[in-house]
Amino acid sequence: MTLRVGIAGLGTVGGGVVKLLAAQAGLITARAGQEIKVTAVSARSRRDRGFSLDGFTWHDGPVALAADPDVDVVVELIGGSDGPAKALAEAAIAAGKPVVTANKAMLAMHGPELAALAEARGVTIAYEAAVAGGIPVIKVLREGLAGNGVSRVAGILNGTCNYILTTMREEGRDFADVLADAQKLGYAEADPSFDVDGIDAAHKLAILAGLAFGARIDFAALHIEGIRRISDLDISFAQELGYRIKLLGIAERKEDGISLRVHPAMVPLSRPLATVDGVFNAVQLEGDFSGPVFLRGRGAGEGPTASAVVADLVDIARGVRIPVWGQAATSLAPARVLPMAAHEGAYFLRLMVVDQPGVLADVTAILRDHGISLESMLQNGRKPGESVPIVLVTHETSEAAVNGALARIAKLPSVLEEPALIRIEP
Amino acid sequence: MTLRVGIAGLGTVGGGVVKLLAAQAGLITARAGQEIKVTAVSARSRRDRGFSLDGFTWHDGPVALAADPDVDVVVELIGGSDGPAKALAEAAIAAGKPVVTANKAMLAMHGPELAALAEARGVTIAYEAAVAGGIPVIKVLREGLAGNGVSRVAGILNGTCNYILTTMREEGRDFADVLADAQKLGYAEADPSFDVDGIDAAHKLAILAGLAFGARIDFAALHIEGIRRISDLDISFAQELGYRIKLLGIAERKEDGISLRVHPAMVPLSRPLATVDGVFNAVQLEGDFSGPVFLRGRGAGEGPTASAVVADLVDIARGVRIPVWGQAATSLAPARVLPMAAHEGAYFLRLMVVDQPGVLADVTAILRDHGISLESMLQNGRKPGESVPIVLVTHETSEAAVNGALARIAKLPSVLEEPALIRIEP
Repeated sequence: MTLRVGIAGLGTVGGGVVKLLAAQAGLITARAGQEIKVTAVSARSRRDRGFSLDGFTWHDGPVALAADPDVDVVVELIGGSDGPAKALAEAAIAAGKPVVTANKAMLAMHGPELAALAEARGVTIAYEAAVAGGIPVIKVLREGLAGNGVSRVAGILNGTCNYILTTMREEGRDFADVLADAQKLGYAEADPSFDVDGIDAAHKLAILAGLAFGARIDFAALHIEGIRRISDLDISFAQELGYRIKLLGIAERKEDGISLRVHPAMVPLSRPLATVDGVFNAVQLEGDFSGPVFLRGRGAGEGPTASAVVADLVDIARGVRIPVWGQAATSLAPARVLPMAAHEGAYFLRLMVVDQPGVLADVTAILRDHGISLESMLQNGRKPGESVPIVLVTHETSEAAVNGALARIAKLPSVLEEPALIRIEP
Repeated sequence: MTLRVGIAGLGTVGGGVVKLLAAQAGLITARAGQEIKVTAVSARSRRDRGFSLDGFTWHDGPVALAADPDVDVVVELIGGSDGPAKALAEAAIAAGKPVVTANKAMLAMHGPELAALAEARGVTIAYEAAVAGGIPVIKVLREGLAGNGVSRVAGILNGTCNYILTTMREEGRDFADVLADAQKLGYAEADPSFDVDGIDAAHKLAILAGLAFGARIDFAALHIEGIRRISDLDISFAQELGYRIKLLGIAERKEDGISLRVHPAMVPLSRPLATVDGVFNAVQLEGDFSGPVFLRGRGAGEGPTASAVVADLVDIARGVRIPVWGQAATSLAPARVLPMAAHEGAYFLRLMVVDQPGVLADVTAILRDHGISLESMLQNGRKPGESVPIVLVTHETSEAAVNGALARIAKLPSVLEEPALIRIEP
């Protein structure tokens, strides 16, 4: 018996899948109970990719690949929420073939609808590779924690941002400088906005939240901030205060809805997420019976992502059929996503002020007016008449109160720049 | 549709499963695609356990439970490698019913044979709860990393030992003192040897190794050391040298066989395992494509273990049928387990010596004779004529060389106690 695989998209991940299936053929046959073999491929060009395409049927278009009678399962590695990727997934489902995909954008935007199509047709969509690469977080959440109500998911979901933040801290360099280097090294794209503006992490968070809460997530409802505004000054203050700055994706169940947000956060050094550095990803899950479960591994790259795609193929070969979202797609409830203004937590605020008498009195009076109390205040060094940073760490308060106070503080004549705000995540 | 569950053993875990299934009935039905309901139980006595047994059929013996026509799946929570637990598993399999178990001893001793019986009968044995409680490590290894050759598994697999070692370090107390407290708190058994002598961790390691390497593991071939001989002195030297002492279970694929060992180890503070404290468990897996995958969570207790049992029940309800050991039980190869003398690594050695001229010359001459070179040497304070500790950290060397050298060193008149040896794990 052979499971015949058609792969659309032969970039880094597609090549990795071809290589992995060839390198581990014996082991995979033993584990899957049948041979798993690539029979057909499709890509934008037939250029040399460093591995042979001999023995694979070539298709010019992905939809033709889906229709190939020698293809039992379709691996979609084209990318993009719509266009050819979605057309391929729909064609495969219509042909009664399971789909394996690494496409977080497509799942975040169209996951429930595609799942409903697939379930109506009796096939599955598998997407372990879409979130956190080599970490089997989809499997852990959907199967390993199936007995739990999940109250919170928090993760470092974008390796590019984590690499940039780690390098800024370790080398004391600023964002633009490190980004330029990351682009040269291939850790960041020429157009880095998908990564550094938090969109990629948000796609992954939307998928995890849908699974964790059995909910339909409206992607437009997520609060998304990237890391462009993180300064080396904030990184060194974080160090001084016992935090690390990480771009986190957080999904939390609250009394009146779900909080869904991607933003830089101050993470206390004692927390497992704080020490996940470089290109590593990590996810912390809170189950009501399991307690906290923390996972850490490589979030991207040829090997880890291919490992995830092949795990899905082995599942399919083993006959595993689990609902795409952990429950029938038609049973997913629309999530009530809370507005960011309703967020409550502690805040790190940094002001650049003229070092002159009375500034602090003005700032603290405004905070008092908005009901915000301080846990600590930090001002390093004195430069009378010049610009100095003041750091304020608040007790738990509401985002609405902080926004109100900052709008007034920003208008004080002695405050020289837009204040910096970084949420503290316990 | 209903999956009808019979539970044998109503201790902490059994009670947890009854409570979890009741508390999350709606969520589990949605996820499993059918109701999962306890219909029958069996235990040593009908004493009050804080939850009602109304509605469950009571069986005096586990084998009768397996035969109950209203039971579709048997949950074995009796414990013990043989006796009633094994009789129950065999009876359930013979009756064509899947078995869910938390019994690491039974799986470590009889796993492959039971799996062969189960596979011949077309049923499964599920055992997520047998290793690391709330961490779905069986699923991650057997399914999530199915495309990988696994080269190494290293874990903190016994919460009792980790709690004792953590408390010794944090409170500067000695082993016996902390153990007595742990017994009072219920973290350690009245007879603690299963935990503190490393047997429990070794059972779990044998299971992980069998899965990782597709091998039949001869439990008697494991090297097992516990934590009784760890002194507060070693813990403070570890601190000084940048290590934490952890009881690790390690399975490594080497060129000529498999290394399988449970022993206290010095773990560099920069490694994820070093900062896993208290009753938490953690496992580090090395896949050849995935790279390192690190998992951390609660290793024991009512909630986490019940979460693991219920995940297995949900899998069964969903129709998931994966070979017990990740490949056909009949295809498991006998593992060639390397003798501990063949181990190579760096060592922490602590001698208690009379502080007098010439001691160090004698010791270093012996090390030289055995080809052992030192990375560092530590002697804090001086007490001429009195007993002082000397710590030696070696470069990579062989266990055989270290044993040879220590046998001679122990006989030096100036060496007052049996030298302490703790392996350093990178």
